[in-house]
Amino acid sequence: MSDSPRLQPPGSDALLGWLTHYRRAWFGGDLTAGLVLSIMVIPQSMAYAMLAGMPVQVGLYASLLPLLGYALFGSSMSMSVGPVAVTGLMTATLLAPLAEVGSADYMQLAIWLALFSGALLFAFGLLRLGFLANFLSHPVISGFISGAAILIVLSQVPKLAGLRNWPDNPATLLDSWHTSNSLVLAMGIAALLWLVYARAWLAGHLRSMGLPELLANLAARLAPILVVVLAVAATLQFGLSAHGVPVVGEIPAGLPSLVWQTPDTGALRSLLIPAVLISLVTFVESVSIAQSLARRKRQSINPDRELLGLGAANLGSGLTGGFAVAGGFSRSSVNIEAGANTPLAGVIAAVMIAGILLTVAPLFAYLPQVMLAVVIIVAVVPLIDLRSLARAWRYDRAEGLTLLSTLLGVLILGVEGGIILGVCWSIVAQLWRGSRPHVAVVGRVPDTNYFRNTKRHLVETVPQLLALRIDENIFFANTKAVEQAIYQALADYPDTREVLLILSAVNHIDSTGLDMLSELTEGLAERDIHLHLAEVKGPVMDHLQQTDWMQRQVDELFPSTDIAFNTLGKLKRPSPEPTES
Amino acid sequence: MSDSPRLQPPGSDALLGWLTHYRRAWFGGDLTAGLVLSIMVIPQSMAYAMLAGMPVQVGLYASLLPLLGYALFGSSMSMSVGPVAVTGLMTATLLAPLAEVGSADYMQLAIWLALFSGALLFAFGLLRLGFLANFLSHPVISGFISGAAILIVLSQVPKLAGLRNWPDNPATLLDSWHTSNSLVLAMGIAALLWLVYARAWLAGHLRSMGLPELLANLAARLAPILVVVLAVAATLQFGLSAHGVPVVGEIPAGLPSLVWQTPDTGALRSLLIPAVLISLVTFVESVSIAQSLARRKRQSINPDRELLGLGAANLGSGLTGGFAVAGGFSRSSVNIEAGANTPLAGVIAAVMIAGILLTVAPLFAYLPQVMLAVVIIVAVVPLIDLRSLARAWRYDRAEGLTLLSTLLGVLILGVEGGIILGVCWSIVAQLWRGSRPHVAVVGRVPDTNYFRNTKRHLVETVPQLLALRIDENIFFANTKAVEQAIYQALADYPDTREVLLILSAVNHIDSTGLDMLSELTEGLAERDIHLHLAEVKGPVMDHLQQTDWMQRQVDELFPSTDIAFNTLGKLKRPSPEPTES
Repeated sequence: MSDSPRLQPPGSDALLGWLTHYRRAWFGGDLTAGLVLSIMVIPQSMAYAMLAGMPVQVGLYASLLPLLGYALFGSSMSMSVGPVAVTGLMTATLLAPLAEVGSADYMQLAIWLALFSGALLFAFGLLRLGFLANFLSHPVISGFISGAAILIVLSQVPKLAGLRNWPDNPATLLDSWHTSNSLVLAMGIAALLWLVYARAWLAGHLRSMGLPELLANLAARLAPILVVVLAVAATLQFGLSAHGVPVVGEIPAGLPSLVWQTPDTGALRSLLIPAVLISLVTFVESVSIAQSLARRKRQSINPDRELLGLGAANLGSGLTGGFAVAGGFSRSSVNIEAGANTPLAGVIAAVMIAGILLTVAPLFAYLPQVMLAVVIIVAVVPLIDLRSLARAWRYDRAEGLTLLSTLLGVLILGVEGGIILGVCWSIVAQLWRGSRPHVAVVGRVPDTNYFRNTKRHLVETVPQLLALRIDENIFFANTKAVEQAIYQALADYPDTREVLLILSAVNHIDSTGLDMLSELTEGLAERDIHLHLAEVKGPVMDHLQQTDWMQRQVDELFPSTDIAFNTLGKLKRPSPEPTES
Repeated sequence: MSDSPRLQPPGSDALLGWLTHYRRAWFGGDLTAGLVLSIMVIPQSMAYAMLAGMPVQVGLYASLLPLLGYALFGSSMSMSVGPVAVTGLMTATLLAPLAEVGSADYMQLAIWLALFSGALLFAFGLLRLGFLANFLSHPVISGFISGAAILIVLSQVPKLAGLRNWPDNPATLLDSWHTSNSLVLAMGIAALLWLVYARAWLAGHLRSMGLPELLANLAARLAPILVVVLAVAATLQFGLSAHGVPVVGEIPAGLPSLVWQTPDTGALRSLLIPAVLISLVTFVESVSIAQSLARRKRQSINPDRELLGLGAANLGSGLTGGFAVAGGFSRSSVNIEAGANTPLAGVIAAVMIAGILLTVAPLFAYLPQVMLAVVIIVAVVPLIDLRSLARAWRYDRAEGLTLLSTLLGVLILGVEGGIILGVCWSIVAQLWRGSRPHVAVVGRVPDTNYFRNTKRHLVETVPQLLALRIDENIFFANTKAVEQAIYQALADYPDTREVLLILSAVNHIDSTGLDMLSELTEGLAERDIHLHLAEVKGPVMDHLQQTDWMQRQVDELFPSTDIAFNTLGKLKRPSPEPTES
């Protein structure tokens, strides 16, 4: 795919092509984007670290090397990778059965999970396995994202009231309510209202106050950092933590140290399925983001390079004690809107974040946790996409059910079970659809050479000739149905002496289908009925021409239905000897 | 399906229709067939009981009620149900992990397995779930049967040398060889040679000696009973068991008692998967036998009635202490050759077998086990069908691999694992095939209204018009590939201003495919290229017409490629403003 090569930075198909062909004109945009991005991702990254059950500074650590790793290998010029809501949730839910959230073991597993999925993604890229992501259909992805977003919101609701978690059972809900803190609740609701306002109306209001559109949009995107600054200031000023407001707590100053921790084999085995799932979701999500960004700038991306870039990013995260990262939608949008031309914007952002870690980061210790919960809720609520459920349902019941079962699967069985259920469901739906083929008796549209379904159009037929169009590949799941449809048509048209199968819509016949056709032809021959074929496609013919069926049983082969009708319609065969048929 | 209603016994579509409309002319054939069948199935039934790890008389018990149950509900006029090799093997291998072979627990489980799968089959019949069997493709069935036959032969080889089982490991093979008995070996090889001769040449020799063809064939089929009679006589005469020849051992005289044994829930749970698998295999095997028999006599069968008949047969077997039964190929062949017209033949055979159980059955105690092993080996070796492996491989590599992996799966993972592996493999192969669609750029065959692949035929094209025929349903597994093929064609034909998608071979577009098409159209519009469709099928249009894509994005819709070429080929659009494309 090379949509518009002229808009693609030259040489960007090669590794680091954007750097070796870097043009000075691009730098302004990259610098602005880098600065804006670094400020925008700070609250998000800390929030998603909390969601992943990790100390908040780990979110910042996971925003350093991943940006460099992706810049080195990735193919998108505008995507920004880092901690995202879905990897945070998946880390938490996949590891919860393996270790106590927040324990040293847990953090170790989260790091190994990032390393493992990074290695998998990188290996998939080297093996060019990008196509594997095709097996996640849009309804599955959409159901998964909505389900995950609902889970995320539910997980943060108790924090709004200053509770650590949901009470164990509904009966204790009221009891634990007493331990809630109305000050926390008030702060949370105020921040929530501000962020909702910022997301929906702030940009418009800033524009109407005369700010240029671009600046207004960016300012609105940075609303969360204002929440963070104000909340830290308020905590320091009014000593809020003494009033029972849970804060983030101690944050070490400085950069993370670079440590390779070799996982033990037992851990690797228990992390295999989680790593595969998180890799798959990371890849699918990131590639669809990268593609939509590339389309905006008429560029193109390379799925196998994306695998390498995401793999490097996750390895980088794991090496600095971070958790799994992916391409983020909101961070990438900010990046492209702020003018990013190349991954240099990400590198500049990483340098900025490193600067923040070295200087003001310890101040975040005074950030009330409720603010991070609010940041998360506002970020993920728009991901709950019930409109696409309605759209899928309207388009095709089976697809609506796939989406719904994936969504409910995520809510009830968890992210793992939900994805697996969705994939199985979409494969079964596909088979099910193929197992109920449409077989039409066709006739000639008067005075033309077009042939249409006798049930939908007014067409001419010939009594001795039964022309059937099979609208599906003939394979094991539908051979019985095709056979039955043909016998049914024979019962409906008892004068039939010639059967013409029109294979214009048959792209493959498997050996089960071939056996059925061979038995069918035998059955027809016993009733002195001849079988002919029309419009057999080249690739189908390549398989069929060596078979006994084609060589001995099929009577005649016509290039078009028109010729077949002309020939068979006029055919006068000698009257058969009286038989049972 | 009513192939040749005149040859079908009248009213046989109704339950017991064959009986209520019974004609005296049919009785001669049914009586002969019943007598021949009863003699033929005795050694086989005992042998398969041994294979199933049950006392040999259980094989005879399982030949009573099942014949009546099938006569009551089944739809085939000629199939004979009873113990078969595959159900014997499946019983043994599925139950081996659950109880010690030959123990009381084991026999209990085998009975419950028959009852459970009988109930499942009957329930499937009531729910009309006969179509489920369609998910076993021919390569899977063929690989399974060959693998099972190899397993069966391997299990019987030690018995030829008078050993109970294969030695635990190869090192002890020579040691255990010393415990073998050369007398047993000699008897086994003699019987083997006789049975092989009988199967291959006896009928021909009898015919050349003046015997009518039918009689000669039947006599050859009864060769195993001669082995049984001679071996029992020799054991009694020469006191062979005192010479270390293992014999069948005590057989109680009389009919089995009718006992309903309610399984406990724990056993039911562990039997669920085995019962589902044995039901599925029983159904698929029996229906294909019944179908081939029905074809010979120009009759038809009803898959849902077959489920009821097989369910009743298995419930009947379980009620009399028997194991799982199915339609058998060799017993059914004998039945139809001996003149069976209706299931009355089976009822007569059941009465005969009951008579044998009441009289001479205790004599079978003196039958050397090696003879049953020989009967099994001779019966199943022809099921090892390597020719269909070669045929499947030649027809399509993927199908050959499906067959081979099912066969090896059965040998290595066991019958359960083999079937599951085969089904998964054939589904994945189907998806894989669909994920690599054939997309052809087509042009007009000069002076006709036919359009063919530019790569296979000499055709005329128009520079501004790119006509693409998509030879596959557009669904999640191939949307990326279709998109890529279209962009590739655009790169190959850079003057394109109109893209025509010919959907004659597209029978379904799922929502992932629709999203791709919508994005593609957007991408084309940005390059000032228009998208048109031709030959959209009715069922596809039913889904598409409500979508935004069809209503807003698609430019024009043509009933035929011919009209589209005529219209678009002459189109003169105003020159676009200079853009990047």
